[in-house]
Amino acid sequence: MSRDARWMNEAAQLGHAFDGEIRIGGNYTPVVQDGRHVYVSGQIPRVGDAVVVTGAAGGAATLAQAQHAARVCVMRALALLQRHLGSLDRVVGVPRMTVYVQSAAGFTQQSEVADAASDILLRVLDVAARHARTSVGVAQLPKDATVELDLVAAVDADERSGAPC
Amino acid sequence: MSRDARWMNEAAQLGHAFDGEIRIGGNYTPVVQDGRHVYVSGQIPRVGDAVVVTGAAGGAATLAQAQHAARVCVMRALALLQRHLGSLDRVVGVPRMTVYVQSAAGFTQQSEVADAASDILLRVLDVAARHARTSVGVAQLPKDATVELDLVAAVDADERSGAPC
Amino acid sequence: MSRDARWMNEAAQLGHAFDGEIRIGGNYTPVVQDGRHVYVSGQIPRVGDAVVVTGAAGGAATLAQAQHAARVCVMRALALLQRHLGSLDRVVGVPRMTVYVQSAAGFTQQSEVADAASDILLRVLDVAARHARTSVGVAQLPKDATVELDLVAAVDADERSGAPC
Repeated sequence: MSRDARWMNEAAQLGHAFDGEIRIGGNYTPVVQDGRHVYVSGQIPRVGDAVVVTGAAGGAATLAQAQHAARVCVMRALALLQRHLGSLDRVVGVPRMTVYVQSAAGFTQQSEVADAASDILLRVLDVAARHARTSVGVAQLPKDATVELDLVAAVDADERSGAPC
Repeated sequence: MSRDARWMNEAAQLGHAFDGEIRIGGNYTPVVQDGRHVYVSGQIPRVGDAVVVTGAAGGAATLAQAQHAARVCVMRALALLQRHLGSLDRVVGVPRMTVYVQSAAGFTQQSEVADAASDILLRVLDVAARHARTSVGVAQLPKDATVELDLVAAVDADERSGAPC
Repeated sequence: MSRDARWMNEAAQLGHAFDGEIRIGGNYTPVVQDGRHVYVSGQIPRVGDAVVVTGAAGGAATLAQAQHAARVCVMRALALLQRHLGSLDRVVGVPRMTVYVQSAAGFTQQSEVADAASDILLRVLDVAARHARTSVGVAQLPKDATVELDLVAAVDADERSGAPC
């Protein structure tokens, strides 16, 4: 099964449709290619117009809800990569993923939240999924999102990757 | 108009002089070149000795003040790039900018704060300004600054860019 | 004295043994090589099974304790680099280090905490230690750690660095 088909499977399991435009909330670019690297902007768990998980983990959002948020974020990041590259099969690695978890006082399971996103990377990208990761607990996130994550992917060389950005 | 001239225009509009040394507050390097990339250290809204906007956005600092802080931060980052490269005309892209906003409880407009910095990138760097962006709300920042931001720029090849760092 | 020997000296001064496995707390990879770059995952001040400094800087943890945490974090990052590369002598630069400090209300000395890690980089890596740095104050960190830091190192070319990741 291709990685793109596996991404579809994950989307079906999450119960969200990601088939529309991936909206962004500001004056920047969702993905920027720089040579063999593609930088994905910070993703919040937005599906269409709605942010589907809000509030602080350990407060208004449970650990399970925060993990769901992390899954939606990473699925959006993969969707953006797929549209930019044509196929996720062009990804050869994910050098870094950073996961920001809106955290109530005393909530220290940021790694457990980030694991939900890492698990999807591993299932969809298989050999290309090895990633360094940093997860931290922040005070607030845009639109009261429970999780935000960004990543940089390394891609194979083709005609598009010769020029920076 | 050259990008350097446009940077001067932005500085005039902000009402701050950036002509002195860009001070840093620790035992690190303001800009580090690594091959074709220049990494800019986290910038707070410092002009000379003074941090010109302090306190949490949504608390002691209004949204407009936080946006002013973001503008000063990105102008410092561009000033450091300019001094390192000789001219901003050598920038070919900005793969990533990360914006940290000191945020009071309930403040969720981190993207709107970051947009103020992105707008300056777009006005000064034009075709090279496309950037992936992440903006988050943090509990505290050095010297009680309202905003901190860092970025990495891709630059054209010249004799300086052959060696890492 | 080789850099590896200097790392040993620093470890002796800190009073911690780093000779066991460097444990990680999730479903990711401690170090990922991507061409000439090695990305190190976020490190907390863990020695063996124990996180040796917990709580917010300026609250349960003093500035001195937070600086100790930062030293343990960067020593772990260097240990991971050393094991991956065979020797720290292969490091040619550290383009970026990001330092996250769990911060109590009113604590604004994140740079002073990060300096403790930067000082070790400078002592161990000498000419390769120049680094851009970002330090911020966050609400929470995994396992209530006082500090988390990540970095990316540039390394010399050898047979291992040809393939991404």
